[in-house]
Amino acid sequence: MENNRPLIFVTNDDGINAKGLQALIDIVKPFGKVVVVAPEEGQSGMSHALTVKTPIRLRKIEQKEGFEKYAVSGTPVDCVKLAFNQLLSRRPDLVVSGVNNGSNSSVSVVYSGTMGAAIEGCLYGVPSVGFSSLDMNSNQDFELAKRFCGTIVEKVLSEGISQGTCLNVNLPAIKADECKGVKICRQNKGRWIEEFEKRTDPHGGEYYWLTGSFENHEPESTDTDEWALNHKYISIVPIKVDFTDYASIETLNERFNTIRSEKI
Amino acid sequence: MENNRPLIFVTNDDGINAKGLQALIDIVKPFGKVVVVAPEEGQSGMSHALTVKTPIRLRKIEQKEGFEKYAVSGTPVDCVKLAFNQLLSRRPDLVVSGVNNGSNSSVSVVYSGTMGAAIEGCLYGVPSVGFSSLDMNSNQDFELAKRFCGTIVEKVLSEGISQGTCLNVNLPAIKADECKGVKICRQNKGRWIEEFEKRTDPHGGEYYWLTGSFENHEPESTDTDEWALNHKYISIVPIKVDFTDYASIETLNERFNTIRSEKI
Repeated sequence: MENNRPLIFVTNDDGINAKGLQALIDIVKPFGKVVVVAPEEGQSGMSHALTVKTPIRLRKIEQKEGFEKYAVSGTPVDCVKLAFNQLLSRRPDLVVSGVNNGSNSSVSVVYSGTMGAAIEGCLYGVPSVGFSSLDMNSNQDFELAKRFCGTIVEKVLSEGISQGTCLNVNLPAIKADECKGVKICRQNKGRWIEEFEKRTDPHGGEYYWLTGSFENHEPESTDTDEWALNHKYISIVPIKVDFTDYASIETLNERFNTIRSEKI
Repeated sequence: MENNRPLIFVTNDDGINAKGLQALIDIVKPFGKVVVVAPEEGQSGMSHALTVKTPIRLRKIEQKEGFEKYAVSGTPVDCVKLAFNQLLSRRPDLVVSGVNNGSNSSVSVVYSGTMGAAIEGCLYGVPSVGFSSLDMNSNQDFELAKRFCGTIVEKVLSEGISQGTCLNVNLPAIKADECKGVKICRQNKGRWIEEFEKRTDPHGGEYYWLTGSFENHEPESTDTDEWALNHKYISIVPIKVDFTDYASIETLNERFNTIRSEKI
Protein backbone atom coordinates (compact mmCIF):
# COMPACT_ATOMS: atom_id res chain seq x y z
CA MET A 1 0.00 0.00 0.00
CA GLU A 2 2.75 2.39 1.08
CA ASN A 3 4.29 2.25 -2.40
CA ASN A 4 1.09 3.45 -4.01
CA ARG A 5 1.13 6.75 -2.19
CA PRO A 6 1.88 9.76 -4.42
CA LEU A 7 5.51 10.86 -4.62
CA ILE A 8 5.73 14.61 -4.01
CA PHE A 9 8.84 16.61 -4.82
CA VAL A 10 9.39 19.86 -2.88
CA THR A 11 11.84 22.67 -3.63
CA ASN A 12 12.08 26.45 -3.29
CA ASP A 13 14.31 29.43 -4.07
CA ASP A 14 14.75 30.85 -0.57
CA GLY A 15 16.98 27.95 0.45
CA ILE A 16 16.85 24.82 2.59
CA ASN A 17 16.45 26.74 5.87
CA ALA A 18 13.55 28.95 4.78
CA LYS A 19 10.39 28.90 6.90
CA GLY A 20 8.27 28.84 3.75
CA LEU A 21 9.87 25.53 2.74
CA GLN A 22 8.93 23.95 6.07
CA ALA A 23 5.39 25.31 5.73
CA LEU A 24 5.10 23.68 2.30
CA ILE A 25 6.48 20.39 3.61
CA ASP A 26 3.85 20.45 6.35
CA ILE A 27 1.15 21.16 3.75
CA VAL A 28 2.03 18.28 1.38
CA LYS A 29 3.07 15.59 3.90
CA PRO A 30 -0.48 14.26 4.42
CA PHE A 31 -0.77 13.53 0.68
CA GLY A 32 2.17 11.20 0.08
CA LYS A 33 5.84 10.41 0.26
CA VAL A 34 7.90 13.58 0.22
CA VAL A 35 11.37 14.25 -1.19
CA VAL A 36 12.77 17.74 -0.52
CA VAL A 37 15.73 19.04 -2.53
CA ALA A 38 16.34 22.75 -2.01
CA PRO A 39 19.24 25.16 -2.57
CA GLU A 40 21.85 25.49 0.21
CA GLU A 41 21.47 29.26 -0.03
CA GLY A 42 18.79 31.74 -1.06
CA GLN A 43 18.40 31.97 -4.85
CA SER A 44 15.89 34.79 -5.27
CA GLY A 45 15.74 36.29 -8.74
CA MET A 46 17.51 33.29 -10.28
CA SER A 47 14.65 32.62 -12.70
CA HIS A 48 15.37 29.50 -14.77
CA ALA A 49 19.15 29.76 -14.30
CA LEU A 50 21.32 26.64 -14.47
CA THR A 51 24.73 26.01 -12.95
CA VAL A 52 26.97 25.16 -15.88
CA LYS A 53 30.35 26.68 -14.99
CA THR A 54 30.83 25.19 -11.52
CA PRO A 55 30.19 21.68 -10.23
CA ILE A 56 27.12 20.97 -8.11
CA ARG A 57 27.24 19.35 -4.67
CA LEU A 58 24.46 17.39 -3.00
CA ARG A 59 24.16 17.05 0.79
CA LYS A 60 21.85 14.52 2.44
CA ILE A 61 20.12 15.99 5.50
CA GLU A 62 17.48 13.42 6.44
CA GLN A 63 16.24 10.08 5.18
CA LYS A 64 13.44 8.10 6.79
CA GLU A 65 10.39 6.16 5.68
CA GLY A 66 8.32 8.42 3.44
CA PHE A 67 10.53 11.50 3.84
CA GLU A 68 13.90 12.56 2.44
CA LYS A 69 15.63 15.95 2.53
CA TYR A 70 18.69 17.19 0.64
CA ALA A 71 20.47 20.47 -0.05
CA VAL A 72 22.11 21.40 -3.37
CA SER A 73 24.81 24.00 -4.04
CA GLY A 74 22.90 25.47 -6.98
CA THR A 75 19.75 27.04 -8.33
CA PRO A 76 16.15 25.82 -7.95
CA VAL A 77 16.27 24.41 -11.50
CA ASP A 78 19.50 22.55 -10.62
CA CYS A 79 17.61 21.00 -7.67
CA VAL A 80 14.87 19.68 -9.95
CA LYS A 81 17.29 18.36 -12.57
CA LEU A 82 19.65 16.71 -10.09
CA ALA A 83 16.79 15.12 -8.13
CA PHE A 84 14.98 13.80 -11.20
CA ASN A 85 18.20 12.35 -12.61
CA GLN A 86 20.12 11.17 -9.57
CA LEU A 87 17.82 10.79 -6.57
CA LEU A 88 14.25 9.86 -7.37
CA SER A 89 13.45 6.23 -8.05
CA ARG A 90 10.57 7.30 -10.32
CA ARG A 91 9.00 10.39 -11.81
CA PRO A 92 7.11 12.18 -9.02
CA ASP A 93 3.35 12.76 -9.14
CA LEU A 94 3.66 16.40 -8.15
CA VAL A 95 6.29 19.15 -7.98
CA VAL A 96 5.69 21.99 -5.52
CA SER A 97 7.96 25.00 -5.06
CA GLY A 98 7.89 27.60 -2.28
CA VAL A 99 6.32 28.99 -0.22
CA ASN A 100 8.30 31.93 -1.57
CA ASN A 101 8.99 34.91 0.66
CA GLY A 102 7.52 37.61 -1.60
CA SER A 103 5.20 37.97 -4.59
CA ASN A 104 5.70 36.22 -7.91
CA SER A 105 2.57 37.66 -9.49
CA SER A 106 2.37 39.54 -12.81
CA VAL A 107 5.70 39.80 -14.68
CA SER A 108 7.62 38.63 -11.60
CA VAL A 109 6.95 35.11 -12.87
CA VAL A 110 9.71 35.82 -15.42
CA TYR A 111 12.36 36.50 -12.76
CA SER A 112 11.21 33.98 -10.18
CA GLY A 113 13.35 31.05 -9.07
CA THR A 114 10.26 29.56 -7.40
CA MET A 115 8.46 29.47 -10.74
CA GLY A 116 11.67 28.44 -12.54
CA ALA A 117 11.51 25.18 -10.56
CA ALA A 118 7.78 24.75 -11.28
CA ILE A 119 8.33 25.34 -15.02
CA GLU A 120 11.16 22.78 -14.95
CA GLY A 121 8.89 20.20 -13.32
CA CYS A 122 6.32 20.94 -16.02
CA LEU A 123 8.94 20.41 -18.76
CA TYR A 124 9.45 16.95 -17.25
CA GLY A 125 5.71 16.32 -17.68
CA VAL A 126 4.88 16.46 -13.96
CA PRO A 127 1.98 18.56 -12.60
CA SER A 128 3.81 21.47 -10.94
CA VAL A 129 2.78 24.35 -8.72
CA GLY A 130 4.73 27.35 -7.39
CA PHE A 131 3.48 28.99 -4.18
CA SER A 132 4.46 32.53 -3.16
CA SER A 133 3.35 34.73 -0.29
CA LEU A 134 3.11 38.51 -0.42
CA ASP A 135 3.65 38.49 3.34
CA MET A 136 7.35 39.31 3.85
CA ASN A 137 7.10 39.28 7.65
CA SER A 138 9.83 36.99 8.96
CA ASN A 139 7.56 35.87 11.79
CA GLN A 140 4.59 34.95 9.61
CA ASP A 141 2.76 31.75 10.56
CA PHE A 142 1.74 30.68 7.01
CA GLU A 143 -1.78 30.20 8.36
CA LEU A 144 -3.33 31.31 5.05
CA ALA A 145 -1.13 28.88 3.08
CA LYS A 146 -1.94 26.05 5.48
CA ARG A 147 -5.68 26.75 5.22
CA PHE A 148 -5.94 26.80 1.40
CA CYS A 149 -2.90 25.21 -0.26
CA GLY A 150 -3.66 21.67 0.87
CA THR A 151 -6.92 21.83 -1.08
CA ILE A 152 -5.06 23.10 -4.16
CA VAL A 153 -2.52 20.27 -3.84
CA GLU A 154 -5.31 17.70 -3.40
CA LYS A 155 -7.12 18.89 -6.54
CA VAL A 156 -3.95 18.89 -8.63
CA LEU A 157 -3.05 15.38 -7.42
CA SER A 158 -6.51 14.04 -8.22
CA GLU A 159 -7.26 15.90 -11.45
CA GLY A 160 -3.87 16.92 -12.86
CA ILE A 161 -3.04 19.99 -14.96
CA SER A 162 -2.95 20.22 -18.77
CA GLN A 163 0.33 18.96 -20.22
CA GLY A 164 2.72 21.88 -20.75
CA THR A 165 1.02 24.06 -18.12
CA CYS A 166 1.92 24.72 -14.47
CA LEU A 167 0.31 26.89 -11.81
CA ASN A 168 1.56 30.16 -10.32
CA VAL A 169 -0.18 30.54 -6.94
CA ASN A 170 0.20 33.79 -4.98
CA LEU A 171 -1.15 34.40 -1.48
CA PRO A 172 -2.15 37.90 -0.33
CA ALA A 173 -0.65 39.31 2.89
CA ILE A 174 -3.82 38.94 4.92
CA LYS A 175 -5.09 36.77 7.75
CA ALA A 176 -6.59 33.40 6.77
CA ASP A 177 -10.07 34.44 7.98
CA GLU A 178 -10.08 37.49 5.69
CA CYS A 179 -9.42 35.49 2.52
CA LYS A 180 -12.28 35.34 0.01
CA GLY A 181 -10.97 32.16 -1.65
CA VAL A 182 -9.12 31.26 -4.83
CA LYS A 183 -9.41 33.07 -8.16
CA ILE A 184 -8.15 31.81 -11.54
CA CYS A 185 -6.47 34.76 -13.28
CA ARG A 186 -4.29 35.88 -16.13
CA GLN A 187 -0.83 37.39 -15.71
CA ASN A 188 -1.16 41.14 -15.06
CA LYS A 189 0.60 43.46 -17.54
CA GLY A 190 3.20 45.67 -15.94
CA ARG A 191 6.89 45.96 -15.27
CA TRP A 192 9.40 46.76 -12.61
CA ILE A 193 10.54 50.36 -12.40
CA GLU A 194 14.15 49.99 -11.46
CA GLU A 195 15.67 52.44 -9.10
CA PHE A 196 19.33 51.59 -8.85
CA GLU A 197 21.06 52.95 -5.81
CA LYS A 198 24.52 54.18 -6.74
CA ARG A 199 27.18 54.03 -3.99
CA THR A 200 30.91 54.52 -3.66
CA ASP A 201 33.06 51.86 -1.97
CA PRO A 202 35.83 52.72 0.56
CA HIS A 203 38.36 52.59 -2.30
CA GLY A 204 36.52 55.11 -4.47
CA GLY A 205 34.91 52.59 -6.83
CA GLU A 206 31.28 53.06 -7.83
CA TYR A 207 28.73 50.28 -7.59
CA TYR A 208 24.97 49.82 -7.91
CA TRP A 209 22.32 48.00 -5.91
CA LEU A 210 19.24 46.84 -7.77
CA THR A 211 16.03 47.94 -6.07
CA GLY A 212 12.72 48.78 -7.76
CA SER A 213 8.96 48.96 -7.51
CA PHE A 214 6.19 47.40 -9.57
CA GLU A 215 4.32 49.50 -12.12
CA ASN A 216 0.86 48.11 -12.89
CA HIS A 217 -0.07 48.80 -16.54
CA GLU A 218 -3.71 47.80 -16.10
CA PRO A 219 -4.90 48.58 -12.57
CA GLU A 220 -8.56 48.62 -13.73
CA SER A 221 -8.63 45.06 -15.11
CA THR A 222 -10.51 42.63 -12.87
CA ASP A 223 -9.30 39.32 -14.34
CA THR A 224 -5.62 39.67 -13.36
CA ASP A 225 -3.61 38.20 -10.51
CA GLU A 226 -2.82 41.71 -9.20
CA TRP A 227 -6.52 42.51 -8.93
CA ALA A 228 -7.27 39.25 -7.13
CA LEU A 229 -4.44 39.77 -4.63
CA ASN A 230 -5.53 43.35 -3.98
CA HIS A 231 -9.06 42.09 -3.30
CA LYS A 232 -8.18 39.39 -0.77
CA TYR A 233 -8.16 36.42 -3.14
CA ILE A 234 -5.46 33.81 -3.64
CA SER A 235 -4.50 34.12 -7.33
CA ILE A 236 -3.81 31.14 -9.57
CA VAL A 237 -2.37 31.82 -13.05
CA PRO A 238 -1.90 28.87 -15.42
CA ILE A 239 1.56 29.29 -16.99
CA LYS A 240 2.52 27.78 -20.38
CA VAL A 241 6.01 26.48 -21.11
CA ASP A 242 5.41 27.05 -24.83
CA PHE A 243 6.26 30.75 -25.10
CA THR A 244 5.32 30.98 -28.80
CA ASP A 245 3.11 33.95 -29.68
CA TYR A 246 0.87 32.08 -32.14
CA ALA A 247 -1.11 35.25 -32.89
CA SER A 248 2.00 36.85 -34.44
CA ILE A 249 2.96 34.01 -36.77
CA GLU A 250 0.79 35.05 -39.72
CA THR A 251 1.84 38.73 -39.62
CA LEU A 252 5.49 37.77 -39.35
CA ASN A 253 5.12 35.32 -42.23
CA GLU A 254 3.91 38.16 -44.45
CA ARG A 255 6.57 40.54 -43.16
CA PHE A 256 9.50 38.18 -43.60
CA ASN A 257 8.18 36.63 -46.77
CA THR A 258 10.86 38.21 -48.97
CA ILE A 259 13.71 36.84 -46.88
CA ARG A 260 12.05 33.46 -46.97
CA SER A 261 11.64 33.17 -50.69
CA GLU A 262 14.60 34.94 -52.21
CA LYS A 263 18.12 33.57 -52.10
CA ILE A 264 19.95 36.55 -50.64
CA MET B 1 20.03 64.64 -38.53
CA GLU B 2 22.40 62.55 -36.46
CA ASN B 3 20.02 62.65 -33.52
CA ASN B 4 17.22 61.13 -35.58
CA ARG B 5 19.13 57.94 -36.20
CA PRO B 6 17.74 54.90 -34.38
CA LEU B 7 19.28 54.07 -30.99
CA ILE B 8 20.23 50.40 -30.89
CA PHE B 9 21.08 48.60 -27.67
CA VAL B 10 23.30 45.51 -27.90
CA THR B 11 23.97 42.87 -25.25
CA ASN B 12 24.69 39.14 -25.01
CA ASP B 13 25.25 36.32 -22.53
CA ASP B 14 28.68 35.11 -23.65
CA GLY B 15 30.33 38.24 -22.27
CA ILE B 16 31.94 41.43 -23.51
CA ASN B 17 34.82 39.67 -25.29
CA ALA B 18 32.73 37.17 -27.26
CA LYS B 19 33.20 37.08 -31.03
CA GLY B 20 29.45 36.81 -31.50
CA LEU B 21 28.98 40.18 -29.77
CA GLN B 22 31.40 41.84 -32.18
CA ALA B 23 29.61 40.21 -35.11
CA LEU B 24 26.29 41.60 -33.89
CA ILE B 25 27.80 45.08 -33.42
CA ASP B 26 29.06 44.94 -37.02
CA ILE B 27 25.60 43.90 -38.20
CA VAL B 28 23.66 46.70 -36.47
CA LYS B 29 26.14 49.60 -36.82
CA PRO B 30 24.91 50.67 -40.29
CA PHE B 31 21.40 51.19 -38.87
CA GLY B 32 21.98 53.71 -36.09
CA LYS B 33 23.74 54.79 -32.95
CA VAL B 34 24.89 51.79 -30.94
CA VAL B 35 25.25 51.33 -27.18
CA VAL B 36 26.75 48.01 -26.08
CA VAL B 37 26.41 46.85 -22.47
CA ALA B 38 27.45 43.23 -21.98
CA PRO B 39 28.45 41.03 -19.03
CA GLU B 40 32.12 41.05 -17.96
CA GLU B 41 32.05 37.24 -18.00
CA GLY B 42 30.12 34.53 -19.81
CA GLN B 43 26.60 34.06 -18.41
CA SER B 44 25.32 31.05 -20.31
CA GLY B 45 22.29 29.37 -18.78
CA MET B 46 21.47 32.42 -16.66
CA SER B 47 17.98 32.74 -18.15
CA HIS B 48 16.22 35.79 -16.71
CA ALA B 49 18.35 35.88 -13.55
CA LEU B 50 18.91 39.14 -11.69
CA THR B 51 21.76 40.10 -9.36
CA VAL B 52 20.10 40.99 -6.08
CA LYS B 53 22.52 39.78 -3.40
CA THR B 54 25.72 41.48 -4.62
CA PRO B 55 26.29 44.99 -5.95
CA ILE B 56 26.75 45.55 -9.69
CA ARG B 57 29.72 47.35 -11.24
CA LEU B 58 29.79 49.16 -14.55
CA ARG B 59 33.01 49.66 -16.57
CA LYS B 60 33.21 52.07 -19.50
CA ILE B 61 35.29 50.64 -22.36
CA GLU B 62 34.71 53.02 -25.25
CA GLN B 63 32.75 56.20 -25.94
CA LYS B 64 32.78 58.02 -29.25
CA GLU B 65 30.26 59.67 -31.56
CA GLY B 66 27.53 57.13 -32.27
CA PHE B 67 29.14 54.27 -30.34
CA GLU B 68 29.49 53.39 -26.66
CA LYS B 69 30.61 50.17 -25.00
CA TYR B 70 30.41 49.09 -21.35
CA ALA B 71 30.88 45.93 -19.29
CA VAL B 72 28.73 44.97 -16.29
CA SER B 73 29.55 42.56 -13.45
CA GLY B 74 26.20 40.81 -13.74
CA THR B 75 23.71 38.92 -15.86
CA PRO B 76 22.32 39.86 -19.30
CA VAL B 77 19.11 41.10 -17.64
CA ASP B 78 21.20 43.25 -15.26
CA CYS B 79 22.85 44.78 -18.35
CA VAL B 80 19.48 45.77 -19.83
CA LYS B 81 18.14 47.15 -16.54
CA LEU B 82 21.27 49.11 -15.66
CA ALA B 83 21.59 50.56 -19.16
CA PHE B 84 17.94 51.56 -19.42
CA ASN B 85 18.01 53.21 -16.01
CA GLN B 86 21.49 54.68 -15.73
CA LEU B 87 23.09 55.03 -19.16
CA LEU B 88 20.69 55.62 -22.01
CA SER B 89 19.42 59.14 -22.61
CA ARG B 90 16.20 57.74 -24.07
CA ARG B 91 14.43 54.45 -24.63
CA PRO B 92 16.19 52.65 -27.51
CA ASP B 93 14.45 51.78 -30.78
CA LEU B 94 15.76 48.24 -30.76
CA VAL B 95 17.32 45.71 -28.38
CA VAL B 96 19.47 42.96 -29.90
CA SER B 97 21.13 40.17 -27.93
CA GLY B 98 23.79 37.71 -29.15
CA VAL B 99 25.03 36.29 -31.41
CA ASN B 100 24.97 33.45 -28.89
CA ASN B 101 27.50 30.67 -29.16
CA GLY B 102 25.04 27.74 -29.31
CA SER B 103 21.39 27.05 -29.99
CA ASN B 104 18.51 28.66 -28.12
CA SER B 105 15.81 26.91 -30.12
CA SER B 106 12.92 24.85 -28.69
CA VAL B 107 12.78 24.76 -24.87
CA SER B 108 16.28 26.22 -24.61
CA VAL B 109 14.55 29.61 -24.78
CA VAL B 110 13.59 29.01 -21.14
CA TYR B 111 17.21 28.68 -19.95
CA SER B 112 18.78 31.23 -22.28
CA GLY B 113 20.50 34.38 -21.02
CA THR B 114 20.46 35.69 -24.60
CA MET B 115 16.67 35.46 -24.68
CA GLY B 116 16.44 36.67 -21.06
CA ALA B 117 17.86 39.99 -22.27
CA ALA B 118 15.51 40.10 -25.27
CA ILE B 119 12.49 39.36 -23.07
CA GLU B 120 13.61 42.13 -20.69
CA GLY B 121 13.82 44.61 -23.59
CA CYS B 122 10.33 43.53 -24.61
CA LEU B 123 9.02 44.13 -21.05
CA TYR B 124 10.31 47.70 -21.47
CA GLY B 125 8.20 48.01 -24.62
CA VAL B 126 11.15 47.99 -27.05
CA PRO B 127 11.22 45.71 -30.14
CA SER B 128 13.75 43.04 -29.11
CA VAL B 129 15.50 40.20 -30.91
CA GLY B 130 17.80 37.44 -29.64
CA PHE B 131 20.22 35.86 -32.13
CA SER B 132 21.86 32.48 -31.55
CA SER B 133 24.09 30.35 -33.75
CA LEU B 134 24.19 26.56 -33.71
CA ASP B 135 27.77 26.82 -34.97
CA MET B 136 29.93 26.32 -31.87
CA ASN B 137 33.23 26.51 -33.81
CA SER B 138 35.41 29.09 -32.07
CA ASN B 139 36.82 30.15 -35.45
CA GLN B 140 33.47 30.72 -37.15
CA ASP B 141 33.24 33.81 -39.34
CA PHE B 142 29.53 34.62 -38.67
CA GLU B 143 29.11 34.89 -42.45
CA LEU B 144 25.58 33.50 -42.27
CA ALA B 145 24.59 35.99 -39.55
CA LYS B 146 26.13 38.87 -41.48
CA ARG B 147 24.28 37.89 -44.66
CA PHE B 148 20.78 37.60 -43.14
CA CYS B 149 20.55 39.32 -39.77
CA GLY B 150 20.92 42.86 -41.14
CA THR B 151 17.71 42.34 -43.14
CA ILE B 152 15.92 41.07 -40.03
CA VAL B 153 17.13 44.11 -38.05
CA GLU B 154 16.06 46.46 -40.84
CA LYS B 155 12.55 44.99 -40.97
CA VAL B 156 12.11 45.12 -37.20
CA LEU B 157 13.30 48.74 -37.12
CA SER B 158 10.92 49.78 -39.88
CA GLU B 159 7.85 47.70 -39.00
CA GLY B 160 8.22 46.88 -35.30
CA ILE B 161 6.98 43.78 -33.46
CA SER B 162 3.65 43.36 -31.65
CA GLN B 163 3.74 44.80 -28.13
CA GLY B 164 4.58 42.07 -25.63
CA THR B 165 6.33 39.89 -28.22
CA CYS B 166 10.03 39.49 -29.04
CA LEU B 167 11.85 37.31 -31.57
CA ASN B 168 14.00 34.24 -30.98
CA VAL B 169 16.25 33.90 -34.06
CA ASN B 170 18.43 30.80 -34.45
CA LEU B 171 20.98 30.26 -37.21
CA PRO B 172 21.85 26.75 -38.46
CA ALA B 173 25.49 25.63 -38.51
CA ILE B 174 25.85 25.85 -42.29
CA LYS B 175 27.61 28.06 -44.82
CA ALA B 176 25.79 31.23 -45.86
CA ASP B 177 25.39 30.00 -49.45
CA GLU B 178 23.61 26.84 -48.29
CA CYS B 179 20.93 28.72 -46.35
CA LYS B 180 17.38 28.52 -47.75
CA GLY B 181 16.25 31.72 -45.98
CA VAL B 182 14.18 32.59 -42.94
CA LYS B 183 11.23 30.58 -41.59
CA ILE B 184 8.68 31.78 -38.99
CA CYS B 185 8.14 28.88 -36.59
CA ARG B 186 6.67 27.79 -33.30
CA GLN B 187 8.72 26.58 -30.32
CA ASN B 188 9.46 22.87 -30.72
CA LYS B 189 8.23 20.59 -27.93
CA GLY B 190 11.00 18.66 -26.23
CA ARG B 191 13.28 18.71 -23.24
CA TRP B 192 16.85 18.24 -22.17
CA ILE B 193 17.82 14.76 -21.05
CA GLU B 194 20.25 15.49 -18.29
CA GLU B 195 23.23 13.28 -17.84
CA PHE B 196 25.00 14.43 -14.76
CA GLU B 197 28.60 13.36 -14.53
CA LYS B 198 29.46 12.34 -10.98
CA ARG B 199 33.07 12.84 -9.86
CA THR B 200 35.09 12.68 -6.67
CA ASP B 201 37.34 15.57 -5.66
CA PRO B 202 40.91 15.07 -4.29
CA HIS B 203 39.51 15.26 -0.75
CA GLY B 204 36.95 12.50 -1.28
CA GLY B 205 33.92 14.75 -1.77
CA GLU B 206 31.43 13.95 -4.52
CA TYR B 207 30.27 16.53 -7.04
CA TYR B 208 28.26 16.66 -10.26
CA TRP B 209 28.69 18.37 -13.62
CA LEU B 210 25.55 19.19 -15.56
CA THR B 211 25.72 17.92 -19.14
CA GLY B 212 22.79 16.74 -21.28
CA SER B 213 21.34 16.27 -24.73
CA PHE B 214 18.15 17.51 -26.35
CA GLU B 215 15.21 15.13 -26.77
CA ASN B 216 12.86 16.20 -29.58
CA HIS B 217 9.25 15.25 -28.71
CA GLU B 218 7.92 15.97 -32.20
CA PRO B 219 10.59 15.29 -34.83
CA GLU B 220 7.92 14.89 -37.56
CA SER B 221 6.38 18.37 -37.17
CA THR B 222 7.33 20.76 -39.97
CA ASP B 223 6.29 24.08 -38.40
CA THR B 224 8.83 24.06 -35.55
CA ASP B 225 12.16 25.82 -35.12
CA GLU B 226 13.96 22.47 -34.83
CA TRP B 227 12.61 21.37 -38.21
CA ALA B 228 13.60 24.66 -39.85
CA LEU B 229 17.14 24.50 -38.45
CA ASN B 230 17.53 20.88 -39.54
CA HIS B 231 16.43 21.88 -43.06
CA LYS B 232 18.86 24.77 -43.57
CA TYR B 233 16.52 27.60 -42.60
CA ILE B 234 17.08 30.40 -40.10
CA SER B 235 14.26 29.97 -37.55
CA ILE B 236 12.32 32.89 -36.06
CA VAL B 237 9.95 32.14 -33.17
CA PRO B 238 7.80 35.00 -31.80
CA ILE B 239 7.99 34.78 -27.99
CA LYS B 240 5.29 36.19 -25.67
CA VAL B 241 6.11 37.74 -22.30
CA ASP B 242 2.59 36.93 -21.12
CA PHE B 243 3.03 33.30 -20.08
CA THR B 244 -0.68 32.81 -19.21
CA ASP B 245 -2.21 29.64 -20.61
CA TYR B 246 -5.55 31.19 -21.59
CA ALA B 247 -6.85 27.84 -22.83
CA SER B 248 -6.70 26.44 -19.28
CA ILE B 249 -8.57 29.22 -17.53
CA GLU B 250 -12.07 27.87 -18.06
CA THR B 251 -11.22 24.31 -16.99
CA LEU B 252 -9.42 25.57 -13.92
CA ASN B 253 -12.34 27.84 -13.07
CA GLU B 254 -14.63 24.80 -12.99
CA ARG B 255 -12.10 22.70 -11.08
CA PHE B 256 -11.37 25.28 -8.40
CA ASN B 257 -14.90 26.57 -8.20
CA THR B 258 -15.52 25.11 -4.75
CA ILE B 259 -12.51 26.80 -3.23
CA ARG B 260 -13.60 30.05 -4.81
CA SER B 261 -17.14 30.09 -3.51
CA GLU B 262 -17.01 28.47 -0.12
CA LYS B 263 -15.44 30.13 2.88
CA ILE B 264 -13.09 27.38 3.97
